[in-house]
Amino acid sequence: MAHKWVYAFEEGNADMKNLLGGKGANLAEMTRIGIPVPPGFIVTTEACIAYQKEGQFPEGMWDQVLEYLDALGQKLGRKFADDADPLLVSVRSGARVSMPGMMDTILNLGLTPAGVQTMGEKFGDMRFAWDLYRRLVQMYSKVVLDVPGELFEEVIDDVRKELGVKTDAGITAEGWEKCAVEFKKLVQKHTGSPFPEDPLDQLKLGVEAVFKSWNGKRAVDYRNNFGIPHDWGTAVNVQTMVYGNFADGVSGTGVAFTRNPSTGEKKFYGEYLLNAQGEDVVSGSRTPSNVAHLADEIPPAWQDLMKVAETLEQHYREMQDIEFTIENGKLWMLQTRSGKRTAAAIVKIAVDMVDEGLITKEEAVARVKASDIDQLLHPRFDLDALAKTPVLAHGLNASPGAAVGKVYFDADTAEAKSKEGEDVILVRPLTEPDDVHGMLAAKGILTQEGGATSHAAVVARQLGKPCVAGCGDININLKQRLFTVDNVTVKEGDVISLNGAKGDVYLGEIPVVVPAFDEQTELQAILGWADDVRRLMVWANADDPEQATRARKYGAQGIGLCRTEHMFLGERTQLFQNYILAEDDAAKQAALDKMLPEQRSDFHGIFKAMDGLPVIIRLIDPPLHEFLPSREELMVDVALGKERNQDVSEQERLLHKATELAEYNPMLGLRGVRLGVMMPDVNKMQVRAIIEAACDAAKEGVDVHPEVMIPLTAHVNELKTLQKLLVDEAEAVMAEKGQRVDYKFGTMIEIPRAAITAGEVAELAEFFSYGTNDLTQMTFGISRDDAERHFLLQYVEDGILPVNPFQTIDRDGVGVLMEMGVREGRKTRPDLEVGICGEHGGDPDSIEFCHMIGLNYVSCSPFRVPIARLAAAHAVLRERGFQGVGDLGAKAPAK
Amino acid sequence: MAHKWVYAFEEGNADMKNLLGGKGANLAEMTRIGIPVPPGFIVTTEACIAYQKEGQFPEGMWDQVLEYLDALGQKLGRKFADDADPLLVSVRSGARVSMPGMMDTILNLGLTPAGVQTMGEKFGDMRFAWDLYRRLVQMYSKVVLDVPGELFEEVIDDVRKELGVKTDAGITAEGWEKCAVEFKKLVQKHTGSPFPEDPLDQLKLGVEAVFKSWNGKRAVDYRNNFGIPHDWGTAVNVQTMVYGNFADGVSGTGVAFTRNPSTGEKKFYGEYLLNAQGEDVVSGSRTPSNVAHLADEIPPAWQDLMKVAETLEQHYREMQDIEFTIENGKLWMLQTRSGKRTAAAIVKIAVDMVDEGLITKEEAVARVKASDIDQLLHPRFDLDALAKTPVLAHGLNASPGAAVGKVYFDADTAEAKSKEGEDVILVRPLTEPDDVHGMLAAKGILTQEGGATSHAAVVARQLGKPCVAGCGDININLKQRLFTVDNVTVKEGDVISLNGAKGDVYLGEIPVVVPAFDEQTELQAILGWADDVRRLMVWANADDPEQATRARKYGAQGIGLCRTEHMFLGERTQLFQNYILAEDDAAKQAALDKMLPEQRSDFHGIFKAMDGLPVIIRLIDPPLHEFLPSREELMVDVALGKERNQDVSEQERLLHKATELAEYNPMLGLRGVRLGVMMPDVNKMQVRAIIEAACDAAKEGVDVHPEVMIPLTAHVNELKTLQKLLVDEAEAVMAEKGQRVDYKFGTMIEIPRAAITAGEVAELAEFFSYGTNDLTQMTFGISRDDAERHFLLQYVEDGILPVNPFQTIDRDGVGVLMEMGVREGRKTRPDLEVGICGEHGGDPDSIEFCHMIGLNYVSCSPFRVPIARLAAAHAVLRERGFQGVGDLGAKAPAK
Repeated sequence: MAHKWVYAFEEGNADMKNLLGGKGANLAEMTRIGIPVPPGFIVTTEACIAYQKEGQFPEGMWDQVLEYLDALGQKLGRKFADDADPLLVSVRSGARVSMPGMMDTILNLGLTPAGVQTMGEKFGDMRFAWDLYRRLVQMYSKVVLDVPGELFEEVIDDVRKELGVKTDAGITAEGWEKCAVEFKKLVQKHTGSPFPEDPLDQLKLGVEAVFKSWNGKRAVDYRNNFGIPHDWGTAVNVQTMVYGNFADGVSGTGVAFTRNPSTGEKKFYGEYLLNAQGEDVVSGSRTPSNVAHLADEIPPAWQDLMKVAETLEQHYREMQDIEFTIENGKLWMLQTRSGKRTAAAIVKIAVDMVDEGLITKEEAVARVKASDIDQLLHPRFDLDALAKTPVLAHGLNASPGAAVGKVYFDADTAEAKSKEGEDVILVRPLTEPDDVHGMLAAKGILTQEGGATSHAAVVARQLGKPCVAGCGDININLKQRLFTVDNVTVKEGDVISLNGAKGDVYLGEIPVVVPAFDEQTELQAILGWADDVRRLMVWANADDPEQATRARKYGAQGIGLCRTEHMFLGERTQLFQNYILAEDDAAKQAALDKMLPEQRSDFHGIFKAMDGLPVIIRLIDPPLHEFLPSREELMVDVALGKERNQDVSEQERLLHKATELAEYNPMLGLRGVRLGVMMPDVNKMQVRAIIEAACDAAKEGVDVHPEVMIPLTAHVNELKTLQKLLVDEAEAVMAEKGQRVDYKFGTMIEIPRAAITAGEVAELAEFFSYGTNDLTQMTFGISRDDAERHFLLQYVEDGILPVNPFQTIDRDGVGVLMEMGVREGRKTRPDLEVGICGEHGGDPDSIEFCHMIGLNYVSCSPFRVPIARLAAAHAVLRERGFQGVGDLGAKAPAK
Repeated sequence: MAHKWVYAFEEGNADMKNLLGGKGANLAEMTRIGIPVPPGFIVTTEACIAYQKEGQFPEGMWDQVLEYLDALGQKLGRKFADDADPLLVSVRSGARVSMPGMMDTILNLGLTPAGVQTMGEKFGDMRFAWDLYRRLVQMYSKVVLDVPGELFEEVIDDVRKELGVKTDAGITAEGWEKCAVEFKKLVQKHTGSPFPEDPLDQLKLGVEAVFKSWNGKRAVDYRNNFGIPHDWGTAVNVQTMVYGNFADGVSGTGVAFTRNPSTGEKKFYGEYLLNAQGEDVVSGSRTPSNVAHLADEIPPAWQDLMKVAETLEQHYREMQDIEFTIENGKLWMLQTRSGKRTAAAIVKIAVDMVDEGLITKEEAVARVKASDIDQLLHPRFDLDALAKTPVLAHGLNASPGAAVGKVYFDADTAEAKSKEGEDVILVRPLTEPDDVHGMLAAKGILTQEGGATSHAAVVARQLGKPCVAGCGDININLKQRLFTVDNVTVKEGDVISLNGAKGDVYLGEIPVVVPAFDEQTELQAILGWADDVRRLMVWANADDPEQATRARKYGAQGIGLCRTEHMFLGERTQLFQNYILAEDDAAKQAALDKMLPEQRSDFHGIFKAMDGLPVIIRLIDPPLHEFLPSREELMVDVALGKERNQDVSEQERLLHKATELAEYNPMLGLRGVRLGVMMPDVNKMQVRAIIEAACDAAKEGVDVHPEVMIPLTAHVNELKTLQKLLVDEAEAVMAEKGQRVDYKFGTMIEIPRAAITAGEVAELAEFFSYGTNDLTQMTFGISRDDAERHFLLQYVEDGILPVNPFQTIDRDGVGVLMEMGVREGRKTRPDLEVGICGEHGGDPDSIEFCHMIGLNYVSCSPFRVPIARLAAAHAVLRERGFQGVGDLGAKAPAK
């Protein structure tokens, strides 16, 4: 039996996305549940894959297409390529997951000049018929024959001028006919061949063009960027045309969301154009009306639309992004899919749907992505500053958020400047798929044209970038690289600020603030449910009482890392310098005596803030020379000072010490536990400060749980040497204070050897904390600061590394050591507390890995605590078999 | 039944060393095989361990001692502490392994003043009897009561002066009696108590003193230094006295070796003193006679001695180090053990014993230590320079080798100066156990007194340090810190040269040369037998044809590492700078074009030298900034030049580039394969040079096997990216040359991640080579250059690290990764060639580990190839269960 390459809509359902593509499967599903869908059929993704392999349609495919086309005609009583009563179809791509703008569409296939007459007569509207035809020629020539789109727009412009009209609506039947004629001349001129008039040839080439577009540069780049496998292929949807561009007042086409995709409000939201075909809305070339007006303009269709929307939401249990056409008063659905939305909308809709009984709490948690939370907690403009700054221009609030940056007018420059470290705002008349790399690089996007569903708006929401779209107030001059608003001129490189939530554009930089976490009640609900699901605890890194307080507010269940050296930044650096430069024990002790109260007071504040929760305090880690001025600068100062006969004895003293302490590879030098072993007095002072503060707090009624963390252990003997001294000091302090507190000693696991010999290390360490920054540096043999500048980002861009291992844990390398460390450590000490305190502790993919290898907690920056709470829950849900959970949902199958 | 704490000699044998100590077990063994040994018994090491734990003799021990003492008396018809016919005994320590000078001895125990009379009458020699007694008092007071030894010497000096005699031989019975009286006064004065007169108390305290000395500082330091466990304990040997100090002319005592311990010659070698007890010889306080004179002086005893020596060698199958006493013409053996000897002697004796049929070739190989070969191949003085330099002084050739260094007169200063990096010669009147740390630190040792078996001589041979002993030509003045030879004064810090093989001392520095390897026929024999045993191949690291030739001469079976960047040192550095500073592709290419012929010519020479053997060439590894002047210096130059209004444009250009390339942690920066990925043109030039040279050589009839090694791989994708380019280049060159050569591509495994993901890396790499220097740096998180200066050597000294991991592979950490790399790599590619090319490749312990984890070869510096050949054989022998093989024999049980 021949392989089945083609399915009628009636033959499919929503679960067949892999075979029929997302769009096709949903068209089939809608057909199945009785929603009005123009009939059609789908050429499968398998056919596309076979085509990519063989370079031609697979055997039997075209015959099946013709069969299904015939069946379609019979059902509708028409025939394809029949000039007397032509069956017109659209050809659309549709891959497994939505790839907006990546594939192309051809409408009105099947129409010939002869057919135009018939159509015109049948519908009683020659203008409509010629409009259909010119659309066919225009789209087909652009998509299949690669004639540049602007050329067609120029022809239409000329015709409008000729006719003296401003909009397409003013173009007459003759005008559209003329367009069609001129379009064909363009094709002849541009391709050297006449426009192919045979509808079957058109269909064949059209299907092939969709297949080819799967491996077009845009599509390949997109897939690379979003980790979509290249062997999925796309299906092709062939569907009977319905005509939204027929008979003004009773026809139209629209794009809508069943809820507000920007706020999440449960209110039908969208746009439509009367007398238009679908492409007119999404291209942004005409500014459409609010879909709510349909209720007045075509009330029966509006009522049908509301019913369909309700049915679809109940059926899919998700907000739907739909396309519809009203032909002569009748509603037809052309597409439905889960709608892209802002982070705020994702959270609100998820919570609302739980309230509505549509989904479970777990499903709600699964639907919110870590990046959504990131977006919700992202800095926003300072309201006072905002109030004082006049709005320069106003457009559509296409994607929320605050963005400040320098203006650039093309994607390449925006990308280049961003790589140089600039904050960039991409400003374009409209964006197209070719602009995506510039959008990725930009902090925000501003377009002059297009609506809330334009390419710019859709992609910006997807990327979580602030976007103001359709901002007609601005006039872009691409050649002069500037835009004007009345008499204000904004040149390339000038700074503007965008408020995506309101659609406002400001001149200059507006300061940003952090949004209030506790006011986001829907987010709180999601995180509360996430807390119920997750097994991993979430702790935070905090170096002072203020950070600890914030961390706790965000839900931190402990402090996983308090960096004591951060307490010696700024004006306190001098204290540490005094210690380093001390020439005898008395001077050293004097320096330590001054440091002690400073540290104790910090610790005391942190213990109070974390009343009842554990606080891990890491003993001093960096090499001592970091507390001295740069050796290079001292050398120059001394040389110049001598040349000028100045007294440079002080600089020479510093230089002498800096030289003594200098290291070729400071990251691998005298730091961490090595400092403690070689000069235990600093660590002893620190332990004294910790335990004194803990005892003081305990006396005040605070429930303290200090855990002292020794960094950079490579060999258990380092702990054997140092820990004993420090435990003695802790016990001595408690004896002095007449107060006992619970305390633990543990170590960071950040050196490969410590992970490998974790079984021995755990003989002394009561807890482990993975320092995955250093562990990654050493496991990869990469110095992060050097590498990102010199080769690492290039490696990631070239795909030599799948991800930047400093952002996401390298499971195959670093992860193997981590897993080994947990396993061996717990063999020695079954109740060993193991966590992570590197930057990876706030990365969702890494958090999932930490969950998988059985860590007790992740510790991240206070701002990322909510993200970590969610990601930890996602890890559980994925473990339980939930599909498409969070950020990793789309990526997961790619692995 | 009570635990048995005491064994009579008749109850033991040589296999009972762990229980009876080495000395005791050998006394038992000699007794067993009928050699004349004064009867006695042994208190076991278990008793010592029990004593250390309980702080007192274990239950029943003392009763058993008394029982055995009684039995001893019954056998000899005498009684301990019986003034009428006293049984005298010696008390000696004896641990499992010989620890020279570490334990103390008491002779003549059981003698009382009343007993002296009886003894004097019985032996007809009151002088003899009083000499025995004063020795007892002297030794007992020093060892058990801690009275400083010099005080006794002062008393004897006074008595000699009083009697007007020069030597002890001149001291009369009354003189010795007076000494004994004065000694007791000293004890009263020094300890506040009278000398204990009861022989049983003396014995009890004597045994206890031996037990206590096990945990004396000297003994503990020695054990730490040689890795001997602290819980072995020492046995105590209680043995009937025989009297070498009785009746001048027919009594004496001596120390001898069954062969020459310096040259290995099969000739009885040693020293004796007439009318002396054992301590007189080994202490070096009297200069003894050559043992050969005994043949004339006491012919029957000499003949007995020769027979005993022959019996012992046949029995033990080893050269023996013996102590004997001749009492009134009768030979008594007091000790036998395997004798310490020089490296040359070890090798010669091993080969001779194979020839004599005493031992097998494998045993011979097992007996030679890697450090022996090191010593044999160590630099010696240049003969021409030696001939031209007058000998300053001449002493005993106590331990061979050439040493040059600055003179220091005490162990502490010698050690301190050595730590500062100076080459040091320790000069002492005599050495004692307290001096060992100075001897360890010194390049050579010179003593004014003592013979070939003095402490200095024995320890120096053991340590493999050149030593001139008993050099009476020099006069040391410790206070002024100088020595004089006639009118020449050598002050502290002056440089001298020692020729240990001849016993010559020279003023100033004599240049040293490398000894000829191919002339050492016995060594060649050992290495040839080692080659038959070993499984590991031995390759060498060589960067030029000359080194390759030397490596091959030493037995290298391939080149495991040719460092191509070493070809750009010196005057060729400019070539590389030109490349780095090139501002466009043309300039880069021009620079590469100049490098190509230089590299090709080097490779060509190496291929010729290694005809028929594999040559691994590593592509350029270090970061580019290493080829530029130091950035710091450039900064100073530019600043000063500007201050002086000079033109600094050239320096600024260099500074700009140096700044661009600067890295915080260059070891983890842009180097190795990363350079290749980011700027493949250098690697392509290198591969071209390699393959061009290989093709040229092949055309000349050379059998070439080039293997191109890519350094610093962290991720298989780096190889995927670079290797393809390079293979293409290699193929292109062969096509141009019309010549095919066998080649391989492989990688260094020197980054932890590469070892962890070895299974993936082996998909591309056809061979692995462990770069254990970098692998150790990254696995430990230690920058070697920084660490050894700042903390690593201190770590080793304090025992935080058992060994310096840059000298000996850290099996528990780095080794785990190595084992993982081999295992995973061979899963992917079963015939994967795996080697090691770090410095560890020449370290015996590391070589054994490489053998154990199944490496194909070790590659080391040419000079260490012979050592590696031997060590590889030792690994096999240990695997086969041979005991005490090579250097690791003594260490092994400590693990």
